[in-house]
Amino acid sequence: MMTFKPKKIPIRVGNRYIAILNENNAKELDVRTAERIILTVKSKEITAIVDITEKNELKDNEIGLFAETWDKLKITTKDKIRVKPAQKPKTDKYIKAKLEGKPLTAKEIDEIVEDIVNDDLSDIEMTYFVAGCFARKLSDRETVNLTKSIVKHGGQLKFKDKIVMDKHCIGGVPGNRTTMIVVPIITALGYRMPKTSSRAITSPSGTADTMEVLANVTNEASKLKKIAMKVGGFITWGGGVDLAAADDKLIRVRYPLKLDPQGMLLASIMAKKFSVSSNHVLIDIPIGPQGKVKDKKDAAKLKKRFFTIGKMLGMRMKVIITSADQPVGNGIGPVLEAIDVIKVLKNEPDAPKDLRDKAIKLVTELLYLTKKYSFKYQARKTAIKTLESGKAWEQFQKIIKAQGKRRMPKVGEYKFVVRSGRSGKVTMIKNKLIATIARSAGAPKDPGAGVYINKKLGEKVRKGEALFTVYAENKTRIGYVRNLEYKKAYTIK
Amino acid sequence: MMTFKPKKIPIRVGNRYIAILNENNAKELDVRTAERIILTVKSKEITAIVDITEKNELKDNEIGLFAETWDKLKITTKDKIRVKPAQKPKTDKYIKAKLEGKPLTAKEIDEIVEDIVNDDLSDIEMTYFVAGCFARKLSDRETVNLTKSIVKHGGQLKFKDKIVMDKHCIGGVPGNRTTMIVVPIITALGYRMPKTSSRAITSPSGTADTMEVLANVTNEASKLKKIAMKVGGFITWGGGVDLAAADDKLIRVRYPLKLDPQGMLLASIMAKKFSVSSNHVLIDIPIGPQGKVKDKKDAAKLKKRFFTIGKMLGMRMKVIITSADQPVGNGIGPVLEAIDVIKVLKNEPDAPKDLRDKAIKLVTELLYLTKKYSFKYQARKTAIKTLESGKAWEQFQKIIKAQGKRRMPKVGEYKFVVRSGRSGKVTMIKNKLIATIARSAGAPKDPGAGVYINKKLGEKVRKGEALFTVYAENKTRIGYVRNLEYKKAYTIK
Repeated sequence: MMTFKPKKIPIRVGNRYIAILNENNAKELDVRTAERIILTVKSKEITAIVDITEKNELKDNEIGLFAETWDKLKITTKDKIRVKPAQKPKTDKYIKAKLEGKPLTAKEIDEIVEDIVNDDLSDIEMTYFVAGCFARKLSDRETVNLTKSIVKHGGQLKFKDKIVMDKHCIGGVPGNRTTMIVVPIITALGYRMPKTSSRAITSPSGTADTMEVLANVTNEASKLKKIAMKVGGFITWGGGVDLAAADDKLIRVRYPLKLDPQGMLLASIMAKKFSVSSNHVLIDIPIGPQGKVKDKKDAAKLKKRFFTIGKMLGMRMKVIITSADQPVGNGIGPVLEAIDVIKVLKNEPDAPKDLRDKAIKLVTELLYLTKKYSFKYQARKTAIKTLESGKAWEQFQKIIKAQGKRRMPKVGEYKFVVRSGRSGKVTMIKNKLIATIARSAGAPKDPGAGVYINKKLGEKVRKGEALFTVYAENKTRIGYVRNLEYKKAYTIK
Repeated sequence: MMTFKPKKIPIRVGNRYIAILNENNAKELDVRTAERIILTVKSKEITAIVDITEKNELKDNEIGLFAETWDKLKITTKDKIRVKPAQKPKTDKYIKAKLEGKPLTAKEIDEIVEDIVNDDLSDIEMTYFVAGCFARKLSDRETVNLTKSIVKHGGQLKFKDKIVMDKHCIGGVPGNRTTMIVVPIITALGYRMPKTSSRAITSPSGTADTMEVLANVTNEASKLKKIAMKVGGFITWGGGVDLAAADDKLIRVRYPLKLDPQGMLLASIMAKKFSVSSNHVLIDIPIGPQGKVKDKKDAAKLKKRFFTIGKMLGMRMKVIITSADQPVGNGIGPVLEAIDVIKVLKNEPDAPKDLRDKAIKLVTELLYLTKKYSFKYQARKTAIKTLESGKAWEQFQKIIKAQGKRRMPKVGEYKFVVRSGRSGKVTMIKNKLIATIARSAGAPKDPGAGVYINKKLGEKVRKGEALFTVYAENKTRIGYVRNLEYKKAYTIK
């Protein structure tokens, strides 16, 4: 035990408590960088992670504390801080064992998740955990246990309905905003569908970003529960309800290497379903050379894993494989996608047919999963009827109103049309490049920015005809797009 | 490109440049935690790692910079900082591939090491690299390439001698200070032996700590070269010469999980030999239930790896397997160990026989490695003669003088004798517990602290006779030891 004089470092750096010692004091306490110490002030106590600085930066027996620690312990400059080394978390052992190839037990996983949620693991330790799950893989059993732990240590929305529906697309396809059509149809039919979605990380828009141009997507859990009880469902941002706190923390350390350990990814997805009581779950795996999953073999494996894990969690599962060969719908970027969705729901003649078809396919699968239909075509008929009757559109407006309606921003006023250099047929559209173009144009930060697809795969095009149109909210962004190899986005043959 | 007003955070947190942005600005720049940005002030430019704070912590367009960044860019509060996102280091790809199980090429390893040395990798990225090397292992080829890269990107001491000797013990045995006897004998015989050693990390003393009670161990490379040219060799702290900068940085992230990827460990050891031009290298692997290596099979594997890698590096190698069953010598802790060494070198009658025998064994192997002796007993005779004639002691004093003699501190004045509770024979001495006791007594920070072994394995002991004696420089430390289960250190049967 040593006593220190606190020195405030006037900034917050995250949730974790960090304490800075000079080299001398660290040696005396026998602690090293990233080890833990217990700080006590009066009767308050916290565990902090050690950072070490040079001797001349902090005087002997002076401890540097960032603003969050200062506030948490209600420190004043007159206080003396008592410091002693803390035990290493025992989860370090489990993480090391995983890196060595040993499977983790349910209890071990649960303790790791608990430590993560309580900010008891440093970034280095969390990184080792992710690395272990990536290099050594997680079994289905480990994945289910991880899912349950994430749910246990996060928020939950409990519904008692026998049927709570959910859907999830593993992503990689720009413009694929089926959720905003599926939820209105399903809930118009009287089923519960509490849908949480993500924001874009590297894509031009996530469902939460697109929904946000029409409605508030950051309602609290208690409010969401009320909305779902009243209008059957919602479309909200998952990160706003803290359903998977552990998951959010892991994403931070996964991001630098873009590391997606499959088991962790599955647990992350399934935890979000499990935490809102979903029991009828449809998973959409788009495949193709440009998709996240490249071929049928990998898709079949992933399908099997989703199915097995869902079953272990007591869910009725359907996993479908779709095409990742081109964007779905015409708009890419929050406002442009919202316009597509509205057109489909309002049955407008120029509504994008592929988006409509895919949404109906998904609804059909979900309805059929209830086992209330003897044949799939009957479920499909119900889906189409609900859409064409205008009931889905009516329902969508109810959901928007319940979440809090927002005035949709305009499409970006700066545009730039990319035209075909030759006549022929569209034989390839590069999803990733289209996404990069939409992002460079400002999406999702500038909601009116993005790309409008004028020609889709297989369509004939004449020289000089528009292939796609870039929209931006300011001129600089158009300049960014012009610096890209935007012409390579289409192949015409 | 955005422009920011700098806000100084008045502390240094390490070599890496860290820049803090608020959430808004991070979004605008499209950067995330641990991503990189390029900061430009006037004509100066650096790459910094991003940390993100809440909106109310930093104003929009205000950037938080720690003291090292402030100094490096010579910032004044009036300056404007231009900021743009930087490319991800391409080594991220290699690190991810290693985690996936793909071997690394020489070029890939070299680029990773270069990035590490230049502080271009964040802790998270370095952690993934260590995890990859641990979970996927490094082949001999990868290990050799890692060794060469560490040497290339660190300091070097070049000697042109046909014979440059070196030795290394993988550790785990308290009191094992043979180096301080081997180097004087070898250099007294006219061979070059530029020996770098480590300080204790978790042990009660490293060779550098023990040597430091007699001589300065932090001479610069140029001075060390002169010393070795003048008196044949030195015994210095490796960390003081920056021979393996990459290695030191990796140790920081290895420490939290105490992760020792074997290839990385081997590269770290061999790089230190290679960087001082050693070409005749003896490796000592102590084995036993208490050692770092538990059994003969593992020892044989490790022996083979050392041998292969040394050969690939153009070294003449000898690897011996010794016992890790009890401490070597009687003293444990810097001053107590130095006293043992001096007694052996001065041929005093109470010099610890086991330490003397082991040192002679090591010298014999090194001499025999030169191929100048037809039979090992001849080499052994030379070793003994050099020691017994007093030449080694004379030579040790020359080395001390060349490095800078220090006045040896006293043995701690507080002591505590642990006596046998019964009569019998010593059948076990627990190395780890003895090390913990010596460390709790204050070693290596308090050089006079430690443990003196009164009875060794196999010795007869009467009830009430001293088994070992604890020395400390202050009373509190004796109290710490009394809190340990010190009685369990010995088994008497």
